[in-house]
Amino acid sequence: MTLREVGEDQLMQKCARHLRLNRSVLAGAGDDCAVTRFAGAQQLLLLKTDCVVEGVHFSAKAPPAAVGWKAMARPLSDIAAMSGVPQFALVTLMAPSTTVVRWITGLYSGLEKAARMFDVAIVGGETSRTAGPVSISVSLAGFVEEDRWVSRSGGKTGDDLFVTGRLGGSIRGKHLRFMPRLSEARWLTKHFQIHAMMDLSDGLGADLPRLARASKVGFELDELSIPRNRGCTIQQAISDGEDYELLFAVAPRDQEQIETKWAALFPRLPLTRIGRLNRKSKIENRKFPRGYVHFH
Amino acid sequence: MTLREVGEDQLMQKCARHLRLNRSVLAGAGDDCAVTRFAGAQQLLLLKTDCVVEGVHFSAKAPPAAVGWKAMARPLSDIAAMSGVPQFALVTLMAPSTTVVRWITGLYSGLEKAARMFDVAIVGGETSRTAGPVSISVSLAGFVEEDRWVSRSGGKTGDDLFVTGRLGGSIRGKHLRFMPRLSEARWLTKHFQIHAMMDLSDGLGADLPRLARASKVGFELDELSIPRNRGCTIQQAISDGEDYELLFAVAPRDQEQIETKWAALFPRLPLTRIGRLNRKSKIENRKFPRGYVHFH
Repeated sequence: MTLREVGEDQLMQKCARHLRLNRSVLAGAGDDCAVTRFAGAQQLLLLKTDCVVEGVHFSAKAPPAAVGWKAMARPLSDIAAMSGVPQFALVTLMAPSTTVVRWITGLYSGLEKAARMFDVAIVGGETSRTAGPVSISVSLAGFVEEDRWVSRSGGKTGDDLFVTGRLGGSIRGKHLRFMPRLSEARWLTKHFQIHAMMDLSDGLGADLPRLARASKVGFELDELSIPRNRGCTIQQAISDGEDYELLFAVAPRDQEQIETKWAALFPRLPLTRIGRLNRKSKIENRKFPRGYVHFH
Repeated sequence: MTLREVGEDQLMQKCARHLRLNRSVLAGAGDDCAVTRFAGAQQLLLLKTDCVVEGVHFSAKAPPAAVGWKAMARPLSDIAAMSGVPQFALVTLMAPSTTVVRWITGLYSGLEKAARMFDVAIVGGETSRTAGPVSISVSLAGFVEEDRWVSRSGGKTGDDLFVTGRLGGSIRGKHLRFMPRLSEARWLTKHFQIHAMMDLSDGLGADLPRLARASKVGFELDELSIPRNRGCTIQQAISDGEDYELLFAVAPRDQEQIETKWAALFPRLPLTRIGRLNRKSKIENRKFPRGYVHFH
């Protein structure tokens, strides 16, 4: 059997089944970030790695600075999903020896720009030649207070589901210049009890079922309420992927306050209630269209 | 200009020149690991990323478990070079969608084996398809006590230079099954004042000048004393690379005790004095043959 035939979720389940964890690990593979205890520290250590590959996550024609931005912003979006604060980045570049140095300095300027904006220090990295396409892998370390980290698994029956921003059509350009929702996520966990949160990378249609599954609940979605980017159908908003918006679950009693305060603080970024968590059977949820799935 | 024409050291210097660091960063790009301060912790946080690429670091015929071992052992060797203790690993796998799943489970078994041996938890990862060769990038987080971390830059004129193990000929098999010298490095810094240390990945001929340069000193090498693997010439021991042995500098007063105690504790692993640090001019050191340099 090949990768194409199994799909990423199944592969990771297959491989992660036997992964060695220990009591220093609060969340491992399967959540947006790893959440760990670091020697004697009060805060929790967050670790995340993510990669972008030419021909998969960006085209050869994309401006190198935009590729660098995306490579850094993708794992930043995962740190945001845990309500964490990113601190340090490591960058691995794999590139053919024919790559033009100006392209690489452009790439680094984009990596730098995203790092600067979110106060991250690029502390190291590695380069290797390759016979294949350019790939950039960025690893991040950050912290989160023990009482503020949010997993995917804390959603409760009856919780309201919210998304930030608008979904769909990312491939038209947003995927290269999206903003990780770091300050928004920090604000949410400072003022509200967020039960479960994740960032939407594979599309609501793939990611929402993951959150529900991790929380051991079902979900119902008000499809007409999904905030869409201009020119996108509901189906595209559900399936396109690469939205890098936050999806989170809160108790219904917080709904009104969260909406009012959000609108005052982040007037240019919509926050939309799109449904709720329920007890629905697994079978019903399976009918839900899937978002982007790797290896297909 | 292309990557082939500049070489890794120059490229990294070019890109690292503007990298954002801050006062939480004790050592950044250019040392074996990044050494950072983590929110309120007494111990220092070590971060390292490294990658292996098919066709560069392993051949398509290599057993997948050996590839996994190497992918994990390479950054472990860098943690060893700082006298650190590794704790957490993130694994990024980039593979064509035609990759056979059994190959990948073999790869993970090797990653797991190395992780288990050195008490590391694999806490997350990422997979992506690629149109190119298989690449595996491993990032590690670990810790080191503030008074025990060793940089490349602390070498002093007159220091003795030691290497562990034997050098050269790694491509015949050792590069897929070497042992990161983690316990040896921890023992060294527990009992001695190690002034500078690094792991030999690009060959003594490339790496020793880096240590000397970082320490702002020269070096003299007793070429006949270099411990060689069976069938290797001196030139090969200097240039082959991928030795993953420790190179370190200590005051001459420690020489005798270090050799005696080492022989008793690690009887199967040679420790050899190969030269010393001196004030020699830069020009003289430039004559020194170079080891493996990436992108050539």
